Amino acid sequence: MTNPLEFFETNTSPLSRQLLQHWDSQDLLAAKRDAFVLPENTVYLDGNSLGAMPRMAAERAQQVLAQQWSQDLIKSWNQHSWIDLPGNVGEKIARLVGAASGQVICCDSTSVNLFKVLSSAMLMQPDRKVVLSQAGNFPTDLYMVEGLASLLGEQNCRLKLVEDSENDQLLRQALTEEVAVLMLTQVDFRSGRLLDMQRLTELAHGKGILVIWDLAHSAGALPIELDACQVDFAIGCGYKYLNGGPGAPAFIYAATRHHNAVRQPLSGWMGHSSPFSFDKQYQKAPGISQFLTGTPAIISMSVLDAALDVFADVDMAQLRLKSLALSNCFQQLVQQHNSLKQLTLLTPIRRAERGSQLAYQHPAAYALCQALIQHGVIADFRAPDILRLGFTPLYLRYVDIWQAVTTLAELVQSGEYSKPAYAVKNKVT
Amino acid sequence: MTNPLEFFETNTSPLSRQLLQHWDSQDLLAAKRDAFVLPENTVYLDGNSLGAMPRMAAERAQQVLAQQWSQDLIKSWNQHSWIDLPGNVGEKIARLVGAASGQVICCDSTSVNLFKVLSSAMLMQPDRKVVLSQAGNFPTDLYMVEGLASLLGEQNCRLKLVEDSENDQLLRQALTEEVAVLMLTQVDFRSGRLLDMQRLTELAHGKGILVIWDLAHSAGALPIELDACQVDFAIGCGYKYLNGGPGAPAFIYAATRHHNAVRQPLSGWMGHSSPFSFDKQYQKAPGISQFLTGTPAIISMSVLDAALDVFADVDMAQLRLKSLALSNCFQQLVQQHNSLKQLTLLTPIRRAERGSQLAYQHPAAYALCQALIQHGVIADFRAPDILRLGFTPLYLRYVDIWQAVTTLAELVQSGEYSKPAYAVKNKVT
Repeated sequence: MTNPLEFFETNTSPLSRQLLQHWDSQDLLAAKRDAFVLPENTVYLDGNSLGAMPRMAAERAQQVLAQQWSQDLIKSWNQHSWIDLPGNVGEKIARLVGAASGQVICCDSTSVNLFKVLSSAMLMQPDRKVVLSQAGNFPTDLYMVEGLASLLGEQNCRLKLVEDSENDQLLRQALTEEVAVLMLTQVDFRSGRLLDMQRLTELAHGKGILVIWDLAHSAGALPIELDACQVDFAIGCGYKYLNGGPGAPAFIYAATRHHNAVRQPLSGWMGHSSPFSFDKQYQKAPGISQFLTGTPAIISMSVLDAALDVFADVDMAQLRLKSLALSNCFQQLVQQHNSLKQLTLLTPIRRAERGSQLAYQHPAAYALCQALIQHGVIADFRAPDILRLGFTPLYLRYVDIWQAVTTLAELVQSGEYSKPAYAVKNKVT
Repeated sequence: MTNPLEFFETNTSPLSRQLLQHWDSQDLLAAKRDAFVLPENTVYLDGNSLGAMPRMAAERAQQVLAQQWSQDLIKSWNQHSWIDLPGNVGEKIARLVGAASGQVICCDSTSVNLFKVLSSAMLMQPDRKVVLSQAGNFPTDLYMVEGLASLLGEQNCRLKLVEDSENDQLLRQALTEEVAVLMLTQVDFRSGRLLDMQRLTELAHGKGILVIWDLAHSAGALPIELDACQVDFAIGCGYKYLNGGPGAPAFIYAATRHHNAVRQPLSGWMGHSSPFSFDKQYQKAPGISQFLTGTPAIISMSVLDAALDVFADVDMAQLRLKSLALSNCFQQLVQQHNSLKQLTLLTPIRRAERGSQLAYQHPAAYALCQALIQHGVIADFRAPDILRLGFTPLYLRYVDIWQAVTTLAELVQSGEYSKPAYAVKNKVT
């Protein structure tokens, strides 16, 4: 059998380290690990919070600093095409999210970009007053709706939450004529659940509702088909699965069919049709550039640009297959250990409903996470009681999964995780 | 005489290169040049567009990439205090703009930050509908008002422009009861004219109007006294005189007295009082952190953080004195050359009215600028006919000014600048 996913989905025998080594030797993405600089003796299961550093990204940073900035100075805007960077990076992301050319641009943070597309969508439909989202959506998405409401007035912009957008009855009830925008995150930041982009977009469109997808936990983690799903707007993050570095700039997708009608309110000079004419009146750029606002963050964006080149020859279907196989493998190993019976899997195990992470509930999730980190397995905690593990197929091996679960089981068995040191809260958890 | 400014202001004899060498030997800031990496055989008069690279900035970038990101990965948020970076960088900027602790924070771009403080100020005064600015203000500032108006409605937010805010009669007429906000840029991006922050702020306050200052061309270039002038809000740029690198993050100042009442609409998770509780409801952070939105751009912000350390032992009064002396010197040298009679100085020559740049009108300004660049003098062009020269006292020498004006005079005398190659327009001018 050469398909690891089929193997892990159907296997019923106990897994061994040797068997996982075999799957590493068969792995078509195995060589990609060399494209990253990784710490020794560490299993990194938090690439969904901050992707690891590609070698090319570090080299590019060096080049931007030592040559472009320090030697060519202001001339670099033309000479090194800094001015084209937001669009060029956008094109590289476009390929990963199923978008034809001219619809993706790199800029600002995910939150700021959400404000741009959210207000755009609301202004396009002044007779509809509601933004519908899901109760468990990432908080910043919900907060940005609150912020927009403070400007448009509560009577013109209200947030409504549906408990579970995959519950057909609930969703159909919620998709009323009041709703201007359905705003969803494709993969839930806590549970790792994957929503059905095509079906939900279609449902909303059927009611004349525009759809915004937040791809923070899916871009670079699985194949996405924004064009094919006829999505209206999307936003996403540069520093998770795209490996753009801490706080890397984010991106915006806006379908070409909306480019003429749309008017985004963060109308800074970089979104002007002719920024260097210094006109007094704003005249939006015709294409996706209209979503730019201020001067692009060249250093960070260059690093992201180089990081995206790691994906240049990656087949996203292949990546998805390995991602699912890695998480299947993790869950099977958890089930092999009696000591891990207290871990309750929150992530749907069906392929079509699972992103690239697993979430386990455990009463001591925080301490377990801290103990794991102390023992070289970098996991993540999400309040109040979730242990979250991200699977990044470009640099994770099957033996890393073995190492991670073995460490976890030992920490539980030995009671090591209950040491007071692991209960100390950090500022960032 | 040991004060170069007094010398250049009163001198009536022709200047010589030797004399300028003398002033370099007396320069208390001369050693600061070594803190920067500069190209050979180049005079850089565009530090007001993109500051030169401090050595420490390059070292810091290397450290953030090779150690913090690649080795310590997600742990760096706590271990290397990434989470505190916006506030820590803000504190370093605070010292340069006359702000007591807790009022400045680093984030986003200047344009995005302007949107935050502008909408904050408008929401604080719902009965007043006008943003008053100056006709020649930097376009992005005016465009952001247009964008805000598209959300608040034209009836609730209108931009009015006064031709000259230093014209007392014009300004007093314009400061009506309709005006919510007076929004001005301290140093004009074209002319280099410096406005009187204290007087204009007082005038506006006398009419119950809030004041926003854009410090893009003044922060790091001259002493600023935001607290003493009782300014309400300010924003500024990290990549000009602060030398934070291309597209470095910008900053926001909000006076402590407004922290309770204010509610900025780009209410992302980083501005939440407890971001890692992942509450559904937005609850703004109590202090200046409420102006944060998304995840901070750690690589770019670290570079800016290191760049600001260059200012740690700089006396801003000393820096201002040299800045004025450098521009006085430039103008005197221009006057020494008959070939430069066609250059018309647009910048007020009075100390109190001049920033850290000079602007000359010339019918062939674009070609002159291109020819200068080709001959190692990096100047700037601003449409339609302005040659703009920025003076950055941390890394410019008096002999550089000699070199620049001599080159300029030669290019005019020889007619070299009228070659067709210098008329070719670049994407970024």
